[in-house]
Amino acid sequence: MAAGQGTEIVHDAEYYVLERQHAEAWAEDDAAVDARLAEIRSANGGQPPNILYILIDDIGFGEIGTPYLNYVRGYETPNINEFAEDGLRMMRMYTEPSCTPTRVAFMTGRQPYRLGMAKTSVAMDGFGMAAEEVTLAEVLKAEGYNTSHVGKWHIGDIAESFPHNQGFDFAAFPVHQQAQLALFARASHEGNQMIGANYTQFDDKWVLDRSFRPVPGTMVTGLEAVAGELASEVDLQAGEEWTQAKYIEMNERYQRQTLEQLDALMAKDEPFFLQYWPLLPLTFTRSDVDQFTSPNGGFQTESMQKVDGWIGDILARLEEGGKADNTIVIIMGDNGNFTKYAPYSGYSPMIYRGGKGDATEGGVRVDAFIRWPAAIEADSYVGDMIHVADLFTTLARVAGGLEHLPTDRVIDGVDQTSMLLLGEGKGRRDTVFVYQSFNLAAVIKEHFKLNLADAGSNLVVAPFYDLLRDPGEKYPVSTPVGAWAASPFERILQRHMAWKQRYPDLPAAVDTPYSGIDNLRLETIQMRDEWLAWKRQIGALE
Amino acid sequence: MAAGQGTEIVHDAEYYVLERQHAEAWAEDDAAVDARLAEIRSANGGQPPNILYILIDDIGFGEIGTPYLNYVRGYETPNINEFAEDGLRMMRMYTEPSCTPTRVAFMTGRQPYRLGMAKTSVAMDGFGMAAEEVTLAEVLKAEGYNTSHVGKWHIGDIAESFPHNQGFDFAAFPVHQQAQLALFARASHEGNQMIGANYTQFDDKWVLDRSFRPVPGTMVTGLEAVAGELASEVDLQAGEEWTQAKYIEMNERYQRQTLEQLDALMAKDEPFFLQYWPLLPLTFTRSDVDQFTSPNGGFQTESMQKVDGWIGDILARLEEGGKADNTIVIIMGDNGNFTKYAPYSGYSPMIYRGGKGDATEGGVRVDAFIRWPAAIEADSYVGDMIHVADLFTTLARVAGGLEHLPTDRVIDGVDQTSMLLLGEGKGRRDTVFVYQSFNLAAVIKEHFKLNLADAGSNLVVAPFYDLLRDPGEKYPVSTPVGAWAASPFERILQRHMAWKQRYPDLPAAVDTPYSGIDNLRLETIQMRDEWLAWKRQIGALE
Repeated sequence: MAAGQGTEIVHDAEYYVLERQHAEAWAEDDAAVDARLAEIRSANGGQPPNILYILIDDIGFGEIGTPYLNYVRGYETPNINEFAEDGLRMMRMYTEPSCTPTRVAFMTGRQPYRLGMAKTSVAMDGFGMAAEEVTLAEVLKAEGYNTSHVGKWHIGDIAESFPHNQGFDFAAFPVHQQAQLALFARASHEGNQMIGANYTQFDDKWVLDRSFRPVPGTMVTGLEAVAGELASEVDLQAGEEWTQAKYIEMNERYQRQTLEQLDALMAKDEPFFLQYWPLLPLTFTRSDVDQFTSPNGGFQTESMQKVDGWIGDILARLEEGGKADNTIVIIMGDNGNFTKYAPYSGYSPMIYRGGKGDATEGGVRVDAFIRWPAAIEADSYVGDMIHVADLFTTLARVAGGLEHLPTDRVIDGVDQTSMLLLGEGKGRRDTVFVYQSFNLAAVIKEHFKLNLADAGSNLVVAPFYDLLRDPGEKYPVSTPVGAWAASPFERILQRHMAWKQRYPDLPAAVDTPYSGIDNLRLETIQMRDEWLAWKRQIGALE
Repeated sequence: MAAGQGTEIVHDAEYYVLERQHAEAWAEDDAAVDARLAEIRSANGGQPPNILYILIDDIGFGEIGTPYLNYVRGYETPNINEFAEDGLRMMRMYTEPSCTPTRVAFMTGRQPYRLGMAKTSVAMDGFGMAAEEVTLAEVLKAEGYNTSHVGKWHIGDIAESFPHNQGFDFAAFPVHQQAQLALFARASHEGNQMIGANYTQFDDKWVLDRSFRPVPGTMVTGLEAVAGELASEVDLQAGEEWTQAKYIEMNERYQRQTLEQLDALMAKDEPFFLQYWPLLPLTFTRSDVDQFTSPNGGFQTESMQKVDGWIGDILARLEEGGKADNTIVIIMGDNGNFTKYAPYSGYSPMIYRGGKGDATEGGVRVDAFIRWPAAIEADSYVGDMIHVADLFTTLARVAGGLEHLPTDRVIDGVDQTSMLLLGEGKGRRDTVFVYQSFNLAAVIKEHFKLNLADAGSNLVVAPFYDLLRDPGEKYPVSTPVGAWAASPFERILQRHMAWKQRYPDLPAAVDTPYSGIDNLRLETIQMRDEWLAWKRQIGALE
């Protein structure tokens, strides 16, 4: 059946180039995979596996999972290292280059530029992921899973985008991200992370526009909600100051809530999907580090050690609950580290060039480990290419829920179940398109990378990199690689663009900011009203 | 007793700063170490352990010993990885930034600028390590060891510098290095690694000086010798062309000879010291790669895979001989990779900046693993700082031969036996002086590094780096570190320089090139005669 013409999901064009060459082998592998999944399910009382997905903010490749590189960094992540040893290390996991895009790709299996969600917003904006998108939580829900989300969300500040309206039974999450929560507070100011944000800390005699600076404490902070209900802001009263101490307490609360949710989910009869997206290690001050526990001593590295301990507690709880064997646990970073704060944060690019926001590998390569004792060999590695969107399709298949995937739009996520169960060489992806916001910035095929941002439109002179010989993307091999690869890369681009004509990108959903929240503070309402007035005026000016 | 006043070896000044603070703890540790060494020796029939030292050319940090980074590079070193797992990973091993200096530091325990050996020569030069230097081979010989050297030597082209005149019973080695052996051959020319070296491959109408270019095939190649005898050149007849095939055969011969020597040494009653310094992975052509066995496919990475296999064979032979338990095996690189050939070689800087020749960490940090089943915990790590010169002193102590060390000169090598036997935190070094040839280029104290090359003489403005937060030395932290560290670093420099006044650096030994060789080819003799005539003339001109 032709792509997009029925019950099969629509992939990006490049997938079909591979399928044409491997259809027979893939069919054989799929039969083996189906048999194995049925076997495991039957041994698990007829149920598909539970899923626990831990996504760590701004942790790129090489920062967690191996003592070897812990020594380079001068800190320790023993719990994640042990976890990595018990599972499969996905050595070539690609994400999007920033928080929101990666999270959208995981939730929907779609690269975020397709649904207007390719930008990472740091303000109140009144947009988010549309209700029409089908999330992994919705897919799993349809297969009978109980679903919970705890921690960072960052996929929109409007009701329809909130996790409890996108497939989760329960959600505890901040509506925005850590810039607001950990930077817009006095401690960051005192730690020299903010200059000029506060009218009282400089002579404002040259200031004309008094609407330029944000008013501290007006944005909504942490929300909690159950499916179908309004959300409520918690732990901040009208007039109360948001502080770094509150940020740390918020993090501790999410850790507690993750454990509570895990206990509650394990006690039920149905399979569960628990998603924990901690806010730490992203922090910007040293004031909340009680005791320095690493030779590195950076504020983010110290926080990452704390998160590692928390993850250890969660894994121990899963073990105590007797669910470890039949729970798929994934621990990974969401993008490269936040180089803007290098090296004071404790991090700087190590193996791959660049970090968060960059189209170089340092922006989009992360540590990623998956453990499923009933099915996946311990202490194993795969070098096959995988993208975070692939987890959507793969987990949907493992849960038996492929039928719930939409077939009217492009799903970038490739089903990689064969790679998980049959091992290295069984992956089904050899291409990644790296978008920075809505711009195509790089194309990776096998281990060759074309830097489009520097290329103009002339592939004959565009820089190519060999990612194995040159992980740092510092030594262009444009002559020896470009000599034979410019033309095949041109074809890849043409296919990708032609497919976008057929399946056009959609805009994000738009609504009144903070819709669906039942207890907005007075200062929030005032700020929003001003924003709406300004928006109306700008609209009129246009 | 004051330093240099008797039977104690003389360290560099910085050692005494630490000793003053730790004398009591070190004395306790030494008592524990002595007791443990006696115990192990007694269990080994009263004998000290055998030593097998494998030094790999131009392999920097992260290239061998862990599958995690093998995946980054796209190649495999399974034998060394397994070896690393069976022993102790010395995560912070410093070498000198180039071949000759590192090898001199290991053999003498002295940084090479102290003995005129800090340059890496690529030509016939008529100088080398002096007979007055005391080598580890001589120390071990004095303790009753049988000693053999196979492979690269590169410590001089005069008789007194040759390994069989510096403590080895047997030696098979090329007198020069791989530039001559693997670059000065037709295959390298055809592989675009040489331009203009051959008068026949361009129109020489603009050439005036016909003595400028080397005459191919005139330098001495591989030598073999036993202690006290003249050396003989092997496998090259007068008039015969040196080829890449001969280079590969030379490598294979050294591998065979290492196995032969190992067999012979294991069959004897005395303990042994076998040194194997392979020439590969250093090679410059693709023509000798029969079959590409890695996704990387670089000429040096492919060769490194071959060397890994060879090392596996040697370790297996040691196991079969029943000697594995009481043999200290060390496998390490001699300096960072040869960035000049990046990324075509298959390598490029990965974690640390720079490579061979550089004073950045990429030049002087290497993978280093030590296995001694009778004494060292398997699958362990130490983050303590260690320098290749420390192996000299440490191995001398383990062999019971400290009494043979000279006490009239500075020995940079610190005794690190406590670190090997008692583990992390028991190291006795916190400073490394990085010399590029005879120039002090950087000073490292703990994880702070002062870049002197870029500093002028004003420490107040010199760039400091934090090596944990910034392994790539890209983000100077000169303000926050320099603010407190400029003055203590100044004191370190003053102490180092004052100590050099007391123990002045010595020149290298000088002699007629190729002295002590019994079968020089006619073309070699002619070339040497011209060189001597030219040297006399230059001398006259000066």
